[in-house]
Amino acid sequence: MEGYHPYPPKHLNLSDFTPNLLSETTILGTFAAASIVLFCLTWFLSGLSSKTTKFEKLVIFWMTFNGLVHLTLEFYLVFKPEFYKDKTGSILAEIWKLYSKSDSRYLSLDSTTIALEGISIFILGPANLLAAYATTTQKSYRYPLQLSVSLGDLYGFVIYVMTAFLGGESFSASPYYFYVYFIGFNSPWVFVPLLIIIRSWRKICKLEGTNKRKLH
Amino acid sequence: MEGYHPYPPKHLNLSDFTPNLLSETTILGTFAAASIVLFCLTWFLSGLSSKTTKFEKLVIFWMTFNGLVHLTLEFYLVFKPEFYKDKTGSILAEIWKLYSKSDSRYLSLDSTTIALEGISIFILGPANLLAAYATTTQKSYRYPLQLSVSLGDLYGFVIYVMTAFLGGESFSASPYYFYVYFIGFNSPWVFVPLLIIIRSWRKICKLEGTNKRKLH
Repeated sequence: MEGYHPYPPKHLNLSDFTPNLLSETTILGTFAAASIVLFCLTWFLSGLSSKTTKFEKLVIFWMTFNGLVHLTLEFYLVFKPEFYKDKTGSILAEIWKLYSKSDSRYLSLDSTTIALEGISIFILGPANLLAAYATTTQKSYRYPLQLSVSLGDLYGFVIYVMTAFLGGESFSASPYYFYVYFIGFNSPWVFVPLLIIIRSWRKICKLEGTNKRKLH
Repeated sequence: MEGYHPYPPKHLNLSDFTPNLLSETTILGTFAAASIVLFCLTWFLSGLSSKTTKFEKLVIFWMTFNGLVHLTLEFYLVFKPEFYKDKTGSILAEIWKLYSKSDSRYLSLDSTTIALEGISIFILGPANLLAAYATTTQKSYRYPLQLSVSLGDLYGFVIYVMTAFLGGESFSASPYYFYVYFIGFNSPWVFVPLLIIIRSWRKICKLEGTNKRKLH
C-alpha cells in the first residue's frame, strides 16, 4: 500500500514513510533505562553536597532530565523534521515515529508545534540545566530560576494541549495512543512543574518573611 | 462589492462584514484617554502609601492596565467572536476591527489565538490585577507573582508573534498596520514584562543574599 501510514488525518501526505523498525517495548525500554541511569547519576552526584535535601535531589533530577529531553530528543527535530523516513533504526527517530501516533502534529509540523519546540529547545532546555546546576550549588537565584523554568514548561504544555483539541482535526492514531502517550506520558509535565512552582514560590515568600522578622 | 473586506488572506470569508464606523483617531484617542485616566488613578491611589516607590507605582499601573486589557478588551471576544459584523459602533468592536488589520487571525480565530486568549483572559488577567494589589499592599508574594505574571505575558507574546510568521499566510492588511500596530502597539508587551522580570528577579536574589548575611 503505497503512501500508507498509521497517522491521522488520513490526507496527511508522508511520502517515503518507513514504519517503526524497533518494537514498542524496545523503544520504551531504552528510554526508561536511560532515564534510570540519569536518575542514579544525579541522585549520587547531588548527594555529595551534605546540604542537599531529598526533595532538592528530585528537583535536580527532573531539571536535568527535562533539560536533556529538550536538548536531545526535541533538538533532533531541528535536524530531522522528516524522521518518519528514517531507515537506520536510530532510537530518536523511532521515539518520534512512536510518539507521533499520539500527536501527528509532529509530522505535519504545524506552526504552534514549531513555536513551542523552538522555545523548549533554545530557552527551556538550557534554562533547565542551569536550574539543576543552581540548585546543586545553592545559588541565590535557584528559586526564581526554578519558578521561571517550571512556569515556562507548564505554560507551553497548556498551549500544546489546548491547540491539539482546538485544531479541529484528530491527532491520535487510536484511543490507546491518546490515553497512554498523549495523556499518560505527558502528565509528568503538568504535575512536576506544578510541584516545583508551589515549592519555589513558598521558599521565596519565606525569605521575605524571615527578612521582615529580622528587620523589625 | 459584496463580501469585500480589507483583511488578508483574501479567501477569508466574512459575511455581513461592517467596516469601522469610527475613525482611527477616535478609536485610538478613546483608548489613549482611558489609559491616561487609569494611569492618573493608579498613580494617585498607590501614592497614598508612603512606602511605594516611583518604579512600584509604574508596576502597579502596568499590572492594572494589562489586567484590564485582558479582562475587558480580550474578554469581549468570548461574547463577540463575530465583532466584524457589529453595526452599533461599540468601541470594543471598533478596536478589534482596527487591530485585526494588523493581525487577521482574530477574525479567522485560529486555534493558537484562541488558546493564548483563553490563558490571557482567565489566568493572566486576574493574576495581573492580583499582582497590582499585592504590590500596593506590599504582600510577601508580590515579587514571585510579578515574576510569574510577566513571564506568562512574555511567553504568550513570543508564541503569538512566532506563530504569526510561521503560519505561512499574510496576516497584516498593509505595512502600515504591520509596523504601527503589530510591531509598535505590541512592543510594550515585550519591554515592560522584561523590565518587571529583571527587577523582581533581582529583588528575590537580594532577599536570599540579605538572609545569608544575617545567618552568618
